[in-house]
This record gives sequence, structure tokens and C-alpha cells, in this order.
Amino acid sequence: MKSIHVKASTHSYDVTIGKNIRFDLSKHVPLDQYSSVFVITDETVHDRYGESFVQSITHDRVHTAIIPSGEQSKSIDQYYELLTKALSYGTDRKGLIIAFGGGVVGDIAGFVAATLLRGIDYIQVPTTILAHDSSVGGKVAINHPLGKNLIGHFYAPKAVIYDVDLLKSLPVHEIRSGYTELIKEALIDDPILFEQMIEHSLSSKSAEDFIPFIQRGIEIKKRIVEEDERESGVRAYLNLGHTLGHAIEAHAGYGKITHGEAVAIGLIFCMYVSEQQFSIHLPTKKLYQWFVKNEYPIQLNEADIENYISGMKKDKKVQQNRIYMVLLETVGKPVSVGFTTTQLTALLTEFIKEMHTWEQEG
Amino acid sequence: MKSIHVKASTHSYDVTIGKNIRFDLSKHVPLDQYSSVFVITDETVHDRYGESFVQSITHDRVHTAIIPSGEQSKSIDQYYELLTKALSYGTDRKGLIIAFGGGVVGDIAGFVAATLLRGIDYIQVPTTILAHDSSVGGKVAINHPLGKNLIGHFYAPKAVIYDVDLLKSLPVHEIRSGYTELIKEALIDDPILFEQMIEHSLSSKSAEDFIPFIQRGIEIKKRIVEEDERESGVRAYLNLGHTLGHAIEAHAGYGKITHGEAVAIGLIFCMYVSEQQFSIHLPTKKLYQWFVKNEYPIQLNEADIENYISGMKKDKKVQQNRIYMVLLETVGKPVSVGFTTTQLTALLTEFIKEMHTWEQEG
Repeated sequence: MKSIHVKASTHSYDVTIGKNIRFDLSKHVPLDQYSSVFVITDETVHDRYGESFVQSITHDRVHTAIIPSGEQSKSIDQYYELLTKALSYGTDRKGLIIAFGGGVVGDIAGFVAATLLRGIDYIQVPTTILAHDSSVGGKVAINHPLGKNLIGHFYAPKAVIYDVDLLKSLPVHEIRSGYTELIKEALIDDPILFEQMIEHSLSSKSAEDFIPFIQRGIEIKKRIVEEDERESGVRAYLNLGHTLGHAIEAHAGYGKITHGEAVAIGLIFCMYVSEQQFSIHLPTKKLYQWFVKNEYPIQLNEADIENYISGMKKDKKVQQNRIYMVLLETVGKPVSVGFTTTQLTALLTEFIKEMHTWEQEG
Repeated sequence: MKSIHVKASTHSYDVTIGKNIRFDLSKHVPLDQYSSVFVITDETVHDRYGESFVQSITHDRVHTAIIPSGEQSKSIDQYYELLTKALSYGTDRKGLIIAFGGGVVGDIAGFVAATLLRGIDYIQVPTTILAHDSSVGGKVAINHPLGKNLIGHFYAPKAVIYDVDLLKSLPVHEIRSGYTELIKEALIDDPILFEQMIEHSLSSKSAEDFIPFIQRGIEIKKRIVEEDERESGVRAYLNLGHTLGHAIEAHAGYGKITHGEAVAIGLIFCMYVSEQQFSIHLPTKKLYQWFVKNEYPIQLNEADIENYISGMKKDKKVQQNRIYMVLLETVGKPVSVGFTTTQLTALLTEFIKEMHTWEQEG
């Protein structure tokens, strides 16, 4: 068991990583100080782990809400339904919400906690690799038809209980998705970690092999969000690959491609743009090849360029009509650069051509 | 012109009180630093003051949303519609929201600002006496069918521009409503101010006569919210009269009785309960008589007691099944006390009998 201490502006909290620690909640959270516990989870997680987890919670008043699995649950209607449930169960200001699931559950449960009775406590019990990212840093949100995570807040959990036992049943596209965010963190901060991460194929790894990478990923993220909780500066670096990534997700329709798979394409694009912008060489093609070898769906259509650009224009990081993208001066040195849509269209066109060449080279 | 400096946990801001200062926004707010301005107002305010105000804003990109007047606008649907409008207008993280109206507009516009793109800046330009209260302290919220302000957050504005010129057209029930909150602040903090406030009838006062009371009210509120922004301690004192007040509002149906008129009954009740609880004498009957003389609808029906109690049980201040109410040990010395529903039912029954006696005494 390993704990990482994270300082938020409102309070500090521990991210504890270990095996089967979800059954010892009261060791990590003062459950007896809460008037009620409201577990929010999704169908997939509930089917597999829900009953035993809920039964293990040592509290008189435990309620559970099960939302459909997938990004489409981050909707205003689902949000309102959860608020209504919590209120109907008599949740008061001393109530605790537990987000038991992946990023979707964490995001919407956190936003419910942030806005129920002007904010009550919540903890994260992540069930995916990807959620290592969303469970640290306090970003909570739901989606809007005009874009992802457009409605939300910064609201840190009281604790994160990361039970790696829950990772063992993850489907391969979820592993790919989560691993991309770990690669992103390595690209931002740690060239050696980056090389280690793409040394072997994903299929050769057991769930426990991911622990050291998850730990490093959380440490990198923690350092950045402590420095800049509200994303006015360095925190934006965590969006490496996300500007195009979000646009790809939105265009495909949420749930058609995983978040991390979309970000994987975004990462390659950012590295490609960095090479053009700074006249440098980066391991862009090497990462591209690793993604392809591990069966990431790395594809973009020229016919969709306009859609990608208009998706990127809806990004929260757009300011004064310039689309800001995180680039790399080198692996481990991110920097934010603003582009006009004309510039981005040209870059994206060139990038797609370059990918076609790589494809043909095999 | 007078400025009161308020320290919130995230930043400090000024409440500026003056005549016609709404037309000099750029003197108080760095408008040129914002990418767009989104004015949220209601029909009543817009009809009377909207056009000239919006035209006076020195910015290239000004959009306006006009919501129906009244408490029913603090709904999830209206909230979502405003978010959608802001996003459709291309609002980015450097966008500014202006809440131009009374408490309803301030509450919903503030909650939109708190949750749009995880939080953008907003300022308050209050148009009522009552809004002196809601515009300071950063409480933002919408209502839920199960209770008032159950969905919201603590999110302080960047500035409050209090233009007393806007008070001149207030209808009398709005003046009564706002004046109640000023009386409440005096009861919490300042016995001499309290006596001054009920010395004369409301009808004898011009809009400008309210300025010193508004200023003192804001100063009292500022001191309390600076000490306890998130309502874990002394801030709860500001709820004097509100536990029953909110229940009366909810039972009547929002908009049937003004907030302050409902709180007026709540204040009398709290003073009555304080007298029983601490075996003291308070100017309860004197305040009751002043309210009656000034045509406040001070009435409660015995038949509705159960409804009032169940309304009070939905209050955010309910903890571990006890309903917490603010009482007065004396005028200027508030204290929070928890009651069971049985106790409250008995007290409310006695109180209604006592009011009947007062009525008959004339």
C-alpha cells in the first residue's frame, strides 16, 4: 500500500494505492462522521463489484444509484436525477458521496457533490487505469451537446482509494485508454519513464504491472495540480493531446472511441506539430508505431478536417479566438502555443498526409 | 460613492454603492480584459433599465439573456438554457457574466458562472434592496422541487456595483422584502440599528433613505462571511428567521409571498422561541406590530403546521435529524440550537396561539 498526499486549495487528501483496500474504507475515511453514504456507480461496475463493496461499507445509511455505463451518462438529465435521488434519500450537509467507477462516474458524482446543498464531501474509488487521471486534481464535470466537460467545477475529493484489484477485469480498449494518459504524463515530465512505457507491448502486462506507472502518473499529476489547481498556467500542460482528442471523440460520438484512444491520436498530432513549430525531432513515429502495434485505432480522415477544427474551436482552452494547444519543446518540456484555425487546418492536412506515408511504410 | 472591501477565500472584491454608477462599469471592472460579456437579467428589470444599461457597456461582444421574473426562474431548465446560450455565443474562459437584477438573477447567473467551463468571472449589479444580501458572500443556487437553493455552490463575484438609482421603482412588497433582511442583520449584530430601523414606517422613506441601512447591512454580512465563508459556523446566524421562512415560501408556492415577507414571520418565530428557550424578554411583539403596521402579511394557519414542519425538515441546516434554528440570547447575540420535530411542532402551535392573542389585542 502506498499513499500520495495531494494539496488542494481547500484541503489536503491522500491517494492510497493498494490491493483490495476498497473493503477497508473506514481505515481511510472517517465514515462515522457522516450522516449518510450515497454510492454512485455504473451498471458494469455494479454487476461485477457493486454488491460486495456496498455491503462492506460500515454505515447504517447507505444508498446506491446505478447509472448506465458510458460517456452519455454525463448528461444534465442524469446529473439532475442523481441530485433528486440524493435529496429524496434525505442527504444532508454531512452526507458523503462515493464515486465508485471510472472517469464518467467520478466526473458526474463529483459534480453532484460539488453542487448538492452547495457542496458536500465525496471520495473517489476508481475502477479503471484512466481514472488515475480524473480522480486526482478535482476536475468534475458533465457534458453539453456543444462539447465535453463544458459544465463543471474544480472540487477536490476527500480521499482517493485506488484498489488495483479492480483493474484485473478491464477490457483491452479500457487498458489502452488509461495507458494513453500515463504516456501523456511521461511525455510531459519524464523522458526515461516514457521510454520504459513503450518498451513492451500492452498485451504482455498483468494488471499489477501497471502499478508503478500509475503511481508515477499520479505523482506527476499531483505536482502539476498543486502548482496550478485552477488551470491558469502549467495545469494546461495536462491537456497534451486533448484538444484534437476531444474533437475526435465528439465527432465520432462519445462512446464510439475511448477517451484515451482519441487522445493517442491527439498526442501524435501534438508531437508532429511540435516538430514543425520548433524544428526538432521527437519520437513521434516511434510512438505512432507502438500505438499501431498495440491496436489503437489511429486514423483520421481528410474529409473530416473541418469537423475536427470546429470541434477544437469549442475547447475550453480557446481564448480570444486562438486555439491553444500544448506542444513539446522536447520530451519532458511542454509549452502552450496558440494557433488560428487556418494554421491548424494546414497542419492537420499535412499531418494526415504524413500518417498515410507512415501507414504505407508499415 | 462608498466601497466595502470583501475578502473571499479565492479573491477579494469591492461592493461599491452609489447613484447611477451602473453606467460607469469600466471604472470598476477591467472590461477590456474579458473576451465577451453576457448580461443575464429578468423581464421586469430589462423593460425598465435593460436597454440603456446594455448600451452603456463598453465592449465589442455583449450578449443578453432575459429570463422570466420571479423565483420560478431558479429552475434546472432555466439554468441549462442559460448555459446553452452562453456556449452558443462562444463564451470562453475569459468571458464575463453580469447578473443584472435581484436575488433570483444573482443566484442563477452566479451558479451559471460557477459551473460554465468550470467557472468564469461574474459581477453583480443588484436592482433590489433584498439583493444587498444575496450579492455579498458568494452563495449561488437554483431551486429543486424538494426545497429552495438545494443545488448551488459558494462562488464569489469579482465586483458588486450597487446602484441605488435602481431602487426608486421598486414595488412596495419588494421594499418590505429587502427591508426584512436588513432588520435581520440588525437583530444579529446591532441593537441600536435595530431600534432605528423600526422607528418609522416604511412608507415615509425615500429610496435614498435606505442607503445607510444597506451599507450597514452589507458591513455586517461582510464581517460574518469573511469569518466563515462556507457556513460551518457563524455564517449560519445569517439564517435567522429563514428556517421557517423558507418553509412558508415553499408551502405558499414560490412567488406567492416574497422572500422577506416570509422571513419576517420567521424572525418573529425565532424571537418567540428564544424567549421560551432562554427565559428572556425580546422586542418580539414590538417587531410584530411594526410588521403589521407596515402591511406585512404576518399570518400562519394551525392547519398548515405539519406542512411547515416538513418544509423545515428539508432545510440544508438539518443535521443528524435535528432541525437547527438560529435564536437570539439577546438582540445582537445569535446562537444556533437544534430541535426535534416534536419540539418544533409544540413551539409552532403555541406561537400561532400567541399571534392570535396579539391580533385580538390589535
